[in-house]
Amino acid sequence: MRHQLGERRQRAGRKMSSKVTTELLKQLRQVMRSSKHVTEPIQAYIVPSGDAHQSEYIAPCDCRRAFISGFDGSAGTAIITEQNAAMWTDGRYFLQAASQMDNNWTLMKMGVKDTPSQEDWLVSVLPEGSRVGVDPFIIPADQWKRMSKVLRSAGHALVPVSENLIDVVWVDRPHRPCKPLITLGLSYTGVGWKEKITILRLKMAERKVPWFVVTALDEVAWLFNLRGSDVEYNPVFFAYAIIGINSISLFIDGDRMTDPAVREHLQLDSTLEPEFKIQVVPYESILTELQAICAGLSPKEKVWLTDKASYALTEAIPKVHRYLTPYTPICMGKAVKNEAETAGMRRAHIKDAVALCELFNWLEKEVPKGTVTEISAADKAEEFRSQQNDFVELSFATISSTGPNGAIIHYKPVPETNRTLSVSEIYLLDSGAQYKDGTTDVTRTMHFGTPSAYEKECFTYVLKGHIAVSAAIFPNGTKGHLLDSFARSALWDTGLDYLHGTGHGVGSFLNVHEGPCGISYKTFADEPLEAGMVVSDEPGYYEDGSFGIRIENVVLVIPAETKYNFKNRGSLTFEPLTLVPIQTKMIDVHLLTQKECDWVNNYHQKCREVIGAELERQGRHEALQWLLKETGPIARMH
Amino acid sequence: MRHQLGERRQRAGRKMSSKVTTELLKQLRQVMRSSKHVTEPIQAYIVPSGDAHQSEYIAPCDCRRAFISGFDGSAGTAIITEQNAAMWTDGRYFLQAASQMDNNWTLMKMGVKDTPSQEDWLVSVLPEGSRVGVDPFIIPADQWKRMSKVLRSAGHALVPVSENLIDVVWVDRPHRPCKPLITLGLSYTGVGWKEKITILRLKMAERKVPWFVVTALDEVAWLFNLRGSDVEYNPVFFAYAIIGINSISLFIDGDRMTDPAVREHLQLDSTLEPEFKIQVVPYESILTELQAICAGLSPKEKVWLTDKASYALTEAIPKVHRYLTPYTPICMGKAVKNEAETAGMRRAHIKDAVALCELFNWLEKEVPKGTVTEISAADKAEEFRSQQNDFVELSFATISSTGPNGAIIHYKPVPETNRTLSVSEIYLLDSGAQYKDGTTDVTRTMHFGTPSAYEKECFTYVLKGHIAVSAAIFPNGTKGHLLDSFARSALWDTGLDYLHGTGHGVGSFLNVHEGPCGISYKTFADEPLEAGMVVSDEPGYYEDGSFGIRIENVVLVIPAETKYNFKNRGSLTFEPLTLVPIQTKMIDVHLLTQKECDWVNNYHQKCREVIGAELERQGRHEALQWLLKETGPIARMH
Repeated sequence: MRHQLGERRQRAGRKMSSKVTTELLKQLRQVMRSSKHVTEPIQAYIVPSGDAHQSEYIAPCDCRRAFISGFDGSAGTAIITEQNAAMWTDGRYFLQAASQMDNNWTLMKMGVKDTPSQEDWLVSVLPEGSRVGVDPFIIPADQWKRMSKVLRSAGHALVPVSENLIDVVWVDRPHRPCKPLITLGLSYTGVGWKEKITILRLKMAERKVPWFVVTALDEVAWLFNLRGSDVEYNPVFFAYAIIGINSISLFIDGDRMTDPAVREHLQLDSTLEPEFKIQVVPYESILTELQAICAGLSPKEKVWLTDKASYALTEAIPKVHRYLTPYTPICMGKAVKNEAETAGMRRAHIKDAVALCELFNWLEKEVPKGTVTEISAADKAEEFRSQQNDFVELSFATISSTGPNGAIIHYKPVPETNRTLSVSEIYLLDSGAQYKDGTTDVTRTMHFGTPSAYEKECFTYVLKGHIAVSAAIFPNGTKGHLLDSFARSALWDTGLDYLHGTGHGVGSFLNVHEGPCGISYKTFADEPLEAGMVVSDEPGYYEDGSFGIRIENVVLVIPAETKYNFKNRGSLTFEPLTLVPIQTKMIDVHLLTQKECDWVNNYHQKCREVIGAELERQGRHEALQWLLKETGPIARMH
Repeated sequence: MRHQLGERRQRAGRKMSSKVTTELLKQLRQVMRSSKHVTEPIQAYIVPSGDAHQSEYIAPCDCRRAFISGFDGSAGTAIITEQNAAMWTDGRYFLQAASQMDNNWTLMKMGVKDTPSQEDWLVSVLPEGSRVGVDPFIIPADQWKRMSKVLRSAGHALVPVSENLIDVVWVDRPHRPCKPLITLGLSYTGVGWKEKITILRLKMAERKVPWFVVTALDEVAWLFNLRGSDVEYNPVFFAYAIIGINSISLFIDGDRMTDPAVREHLQLDSTLEPEFKIQVVPYESILTELQAICAGLSPKEKVWLTDKASYALTEAIPKVHRYLTPYTPICMGKAVKNEAETAGMRRAHIKDAVALCELFNWLEKEVPKGTVTEISAADKAEEFRSQQNDFVELSFATISSTGPNGAIIHYKPVPETNRTLSVSEIYLLDSGAQYKDGTTDVTRTMHFGTPSAYEKECFTYVLKGHIAVSAAIFPNGTKGHLLDSFARSALWDTGLDYLHGTGHGVGSFLNVHEGPCGISYKTFADEPLEAGMVVSDEPGYYEDGSFGIRIENVVLVIPAETKYNFKNRGSLTFEPLTLVPIQTKMIDVHLLTQKECDWVNNYHQKCREVIGAELERQGRHEALQWLLKETGPIARMH
């Protein structure tokens, strides 16, 4: 699935009528002046789109920017002053934002020349000596720093407002979700939570840091081998943790700790070594607990936190005690899948391929009848997936798009745009699921009639790019962004390109997008690829108004054997975990090299063997026939 | 020529005996306590390796770190405290630094685990509340900021010491060079200096910045269409400039402004529009002039400066008035060569190729006799180059290396290491020159006997990488670092690699290394490649103790025609300016694709046509015969 930094998908169909916000803004401006809510009046209030954990996907209760403005795209920041209300968003959302917001709002088109930055705009509209408020839990510390600097140098002040002012005016704001937890045994995780804590403490000891604050939801989930369903598509739950050298505090709400399975999993009622005894603390007390810890620190003691954490938590740690890193050891540990996780990912991808073989076989029969729409195809995909063992939910909102809709990279079908699949248009399906043993994410582009020569040509360039990454051999220590151009070379040669990155890290029954690795020209802060990491390989080509093409596999980083082993550094390559046929009908074989041809045939042979056996086992004979038909060898003419 | 950030070459042969520094350090420590030189005693003094312009190559008077320590490698920072003297340098220089320094010095191996950073080390050895001194003109502002922060948080202070304390104890310190200037007419520069100033002022007006400080030596030289010879290999002169909307100040010393040619070039004695009247000011008065300008600024007025400038100049501008950018408009303008500059670069490369054809023809005859050494080959190359029209000097110290010396990437032959060329070893020559019309930089790797199959194999992978970059087609807006992996792919496939970047920007009768573009996995702050930019393409392979291979052309970025022109973005590719045969004897033709074979043959055909004609014109018939012999077509077996 295509990843754009900060992208977020919501199931709710896109409302294209504008929200009336006059009364809401009036209320908010009253609150901005009210001594009940702010110590001194503020002249501007910033509403970023995020939650207190800097999550990519957020829960309905955290959709504050969408609530106040009506604009529910994945990226955007609202700023409300006494006179103005402005929304910054990027090119993907100009149309959507314009149609969802009423004329109280000014759209600030990011990336367009002459659009002021939020800071510069504030400086231009604010009266002298203004106070600009923001929820310190929602704004990341680095963003606070940048904004605060500009505002201060113009004579204003950025101030933390501890009560969220949107929540004050949001009468029917949903509750923070508090759904039951799932415990994961060793067969899924490979490593118990106590061992993970021990490894973390070793890293802390190495750096002489006695405290570690876990703020990202997927890091809390991974560390304790627990999963939740508080956020759609992401099997996480609202929680923080603070790990000391001799203590563990888990900040979590609700009655989730009364579940006997959870109590047993966390050994809450056992006699444990004191350093593994988990203190369960209310979610909201993270700040006071952290402050209490900091108050007791000796001068040289530090507290470890990611530099992406909120301003509130970062600021709670006095500067001399802060130990910030871009990626935490948990993030690194989570990214490198162990044997149990790898085996789980393989199983999940086999099941996922079974579901897709069923789907594509069904589509091939149904599409010509003219009865299948983008939405019904997506629903059918979910239905087939849900038949598989350990299926939990989808891993993101299915991108099911045909014809011109395929060229909208972040398309999700809604009734207003829903198009019927036909034998004359390309169909692009980007979908995935959460299984208890792994997370999947696969894109296939199909034609159910006869593709044009141009469509085949473009598809083949995309395929060449996909293969170039998948078959690449590179030294240990190589960062993923150095592989991005391999995916584009064939397109570039004919003057084509795609305007998104090539791949993202994938979690193991966790977020479908995770750090610290990826394959993108945009990312330079990525960590080197390591054996055991899992990323997507998804080049594409999009012809505005006509069609979209993307070929995506999830691939596992594995050691590669090379002829020479330069300075004993060792080499790496990729093994596809996704085993779903690539439609050979779409390939212009003459454009492939012999090596690329062999890659396709070997890949399809593996699909036959592995997925064929599973289809057989599950008694899905018709889908098996489809698989065999789709995976016949291709050959270059001589 | 291989570029490593901060690398610097000195002609002086490397002295491998250590310098006795006991007395010197004693004197320096006295100065550090003396109220004659410091307002309050300092407990540590930092000696970076650089000059006041953050130049890559420095003049002898600026080699202060080498003077105080004996270590004259291109990269290193010395810190002297009351008790200790320590030298930080990187892996290239561990052996050299260890042998050049006496036991007053501790070698701090950068990149080695447990080596403390300079700041951390200072914190660990200094008594409480120490003052750490540094010459504010030598330390870049960003480095000051980083160090100062750490020291301050540990209770120490980083303080600027305006008198350079090394200069106090350096009795026979050479004078700052003050050599005559060369004026360049329109046929070389294409654009007059007044027009360049006008363009700069337009950029200043766009950003509403009324003042611009030119600090880099090559930027001053380019802006005024002047060249000098104050720094070896770099045709620059010591100067600063401050450009206002209505004024021009040139800070330069000596009697260089009495030269009638220079006076006429700068129209110093003409009646000019006042905004083009150049005020000539002493070099040393830059700081006071800048302070005077800043004192007269209205609240919103800013002064533009590169963020790489010295702490002294940056600090002279009050924070609210600072306008810092990574690259200046001069740097950008200088990088994109205009028609006259491109034509000059072509001419320079033709002359350079003539010299190298002569050299290689001569080597082929002489090497078997056993009378040619690395040094004599380098001298011969210089001799042939100096016969060419408009030759000025070399553009860097020639890397002439045979056998195992070729594997030392930063090798320069000195008498102690000088090796005789033979028919049994690979010879690598990386060399270039300054001509009045352009700068060259070329590497060729030759065998004068019969290369082994392994040597040919490695050479061919390097060649494939060279071609992959040279023939790459990529969209407008692509940054050079995204092409770096193309150069490595063939090596990576067999588990080989090289540990340096692939290319650097090249000046037009200016520095052989210049920003803002390049092709390296290490650089992320590079600006996108643009038609008219000139970079090197120089992958390599180095087998420690055996041989080194590098194939380097200087290439010009040119527009490319593509089949489809994605979103009208336009595409770019490279045209080799260097036209020197690539030794076909070293190629394993079976490892090339047909496309690569064609590339070699087309390249050699162009060498024949262009260089052949010039050899003919110069009456160099023997070298012409050599060229024809070396550029015969190669063919893959079928």
